[in-house]
Amino acid sequence: MKLNIEIPDWLYDICSDRVFLDDEEKMKFVIDIAKRNIKEGGGPFGAAIFSKKGELVSCGANLVLQNNMSVLHAEIIAIMLADKKLNTFSLSSLGDFELFSSSEPCAMCLGACLWSGVKRVVFGASKEIAKSVGFDEGPVFEQSWDYLKKKGIEIKGGVLSTDAEAILYEYRQSNGIIYNG
Amino acid sequence: MKLNIEIPDWLYDICSDRVFLDDEEKMKFVIDIAKRNIKEGGGPFGAAIFSKKGELVSCGANLVLQNNMSVLHAEIIAIMLADKKLNTFSLSSLGDFELFSSSEPCAMCLGACLWSGVKRVVFGASKEIAKSVGFDEGPVFEQSWDYLKKKGIEIKGGVLSTDAEAILYEYRQSNGIIYNG
Repeated sequence: MKLNIEIPDWLYDICSDRVFLDDEEKMKFVIDIAKRNIKEGGGPFGAAIFSKKGELVSCGANLVLQNNMSVLHAEIIAIMLADKKLNTFSLSSLGDFELFSSSEPCAMCLGACLWSGVKRVVFGASKEIAKSVGFDEGPVFEQSWDYLKKKGIEIKGGVLSTDAEAILYEYRQSNGIIYNG
Repeated sequence: MKLNIEIPDWLYDICSDRVFLDDEEKMKFVIDIAKRNIKEGGGPFGAAIFSKKGELVSCGANLVLQNNMSVLHAEIIAIMLADKKLNTFSLSSLGDFELFSSSEPCAMCLGACLWSGVKRVVFGASKEIAKSVGFDEGPVFEQSWDYLKKKGIEIKGGVLSTDAEAILYEYRQSNGIIYNG
């Protein structure tokens, strides 16, 4: 039996063989995914996984609403698609990969970052902003991130944070659905 | 485009319209899933979601190895299949559901429990035992569980813990693959 997760064509199509130069360019890309996802009826979150050389590996958008499935956050989709593409359950077995997210990963996605085998996690908006908009981020503590750091994962927040936070505010103003458990 | 997750036939087949009487019977069921999954080449973890009346809603096994995908822990599979079956991204919108897991949920699955909308989480083996076997459980702290409790989720550990822990020890002795990030 197959459990099918619907990946929208637009998300599939933007995942080209592009090479990105720096953190800002990568962050702009995932912010644009979040913007597009809102237009398509989804939640205001985007993510992507890149190789060390800046090659785009996979794209994720929050597909909770489109698939009616609570765990389909942008980071989870990006990790599943990267694993599928590279045929591995541990990206670290194939090199150094990094995960970018438009917003600070929630408790679930923080854990997923660890299992994915990425060596770097970069995000834009802080969880405080996501919370202020109404999204429960779950039990994410400073020591949660410290745990990942001790495992050799680099964590960097606040990249293009003003742009990243603006999407969350826009989503609230447009009365977007806030889907908590 | 569809992202296909392969659900083994045996896991699909055991998910019948059965009604369970108490926590021990439910825990025995998810421990049996974990045992069967080891035989089928998977990781030593099983999970299931039940309605308040004890009706079996969905079954999950750790399918990381079978699907080559890091996020496919037993709890995640059980949540995805329950959401699919009931066509909702929040089980709490349809009543009180409970998630049983043979082993204490890892950091990712703990977060996923929150998003799923279950009202009760019950597990067998503690994370200390899973860790001692070699599985990194990620940043799960007492305050992580406290966070869920404050959200109205009941947490109960240690049900049939001896049986639940025995599977983990057996898996290690059989040199089962330990898949961390």
